[in-house]
Amino acid sequence: MSTYSYKVADGHGLPHNPFKAIVAPRPIGWISTRHPNGSLNLAPYSFFNAVSDSPPIVMFSSSGYKDSVTNADAGGDFVFNLATEDLKVAMNRSSAPYPHGVSEFDKAGLTPLDSDLVSAPRVGEAKAALECRTLQTLRLTGLDGEMSDNWVVFGEVVAVHIAEDVLVDGRFDVTRARPLSRLGYMDYAVTDAVFQMTRPKAD
Amino acid sequence: MSTYSYKVADGHGLPHNPFKAIVAPRPIGWISTRHPNGSLNLAPYSFFNAVSDSPPIVMFSSSGYKDSVTNADAGGDFVFNLATEDLKVAMNRSSAPYPHGVSEFDKAGLTPLDSDLVSAPRVGEAKAALECRTLQTLRLTGLDGEMSDNWVVFGEVVAVHIAEDVLVDGRFDVTRARPLSRLGYMDYAVTDAVFQMTRPKAD
Repeated sequence: MSTYSYKVADGHGLPHNPFKAIVAPRPIGWISTRHPNGSLNLAPYSFFNAVSDSPPIVMFSSSGYKDSVTNADAGGDFVFNLATEDLKVAMNRSSAPYPHGVSEFDKAGLTPLDSDLVSAPRVGEAKAALECRTLQTLRLTGLDGEMSDNWVVFGEVVAVHIAEDVLVDGRFDVTRARPLSRLGYMDYAVTDAVFQMTRPKAD
Repeated sequence: MSTYSYKVADGHGLPHNPFKAIVAPRPIGWISTRHPNGSLNLAPYSFFNAVSDSPPIVMFSSSGYKDSVTNADAGGDFVFNLATEDLKVAMNRSSAPYPHGVSEFDKAGLTPLDSDLVSAPRVGEAKAALECRTLQTLRLTGLDGEMSDNWVVFGEVVAVHIAEDVLVDGRFDVTRARPLSRLGYMDYAVTDAVFQMTRPKAD
């Protein structure tokens, strides 16, 4: 097939960088934290995923040492909240660049609920939440020795909350939850339909 | 709202672990590699995402030190290939547990094309591919000192390929590409529709 190709060192030569449109759909890590001084923070990160099953570990990566990283480091924990279609306006509102000490829970009209095992609160309206203890924070160095702008925070999941209305026969029903994902440019998507494939055996 | 909650240490108490259904939709890192001895490997990883914009860095996490990790370490590079709806059978086929030295390209009927800057080949049929040089491989340790089963491989993107038929006015058109995502259980989804939200200002 005909292909548009470029070396990153030469620049992409397009109106917008396609990198985040290609690495997609990205799950949204909607991260709530509490600073040791008590102030709350909530922000969405699309550089987010699970990285380990056993023990269960997730990571989010922040462009810059933002409040979420400060708090996950200093407070020792964070909560992942599931961003679903019904919360899209609130999720987006929580991405605004408020000054330190302003709670995005207030600005987005969300309810901070106390967690069971960690200091960070969870979003009361979220269909699922994972309480996480911070394991380590990593800043990557590129090939030419350039430090990345991003900080990668790893946390082990220690407690889980699932809204009963998205649990069907003991399974988390994604078509009821309708999670958001982040794509490139200003694009988002909703996952509202699924299909199944079983893992094949070697033939 | 009524919530089902549990501590991970106590077990989930459900028919299946909901962890990977909650951390969803996950983009699929369809990773191709070449061992220094020349043998090729291709396998899908749903613990995959971008972690840095500048420089552009992606990561995939493998449960066990599998061929992809061996080759990304020893060969020094890997390629991310975009798994789209038209390639779902081939992508799934490449997840079968073939022995070392068997090429999943052959088994899945895919064409290995030489990359521009790295030793690993790319999938000729993929709508996009990112050539990556391995930066580091990380094995996480959990809270109780337990080593994770997973190896996290970080790579910097050095070259990009995009099929011309999914580039529209210089933008990567996700509704033409129709990327797959991985959910929990045996579930997958296709992203075929998007909506836009712009980032709000602080009010």
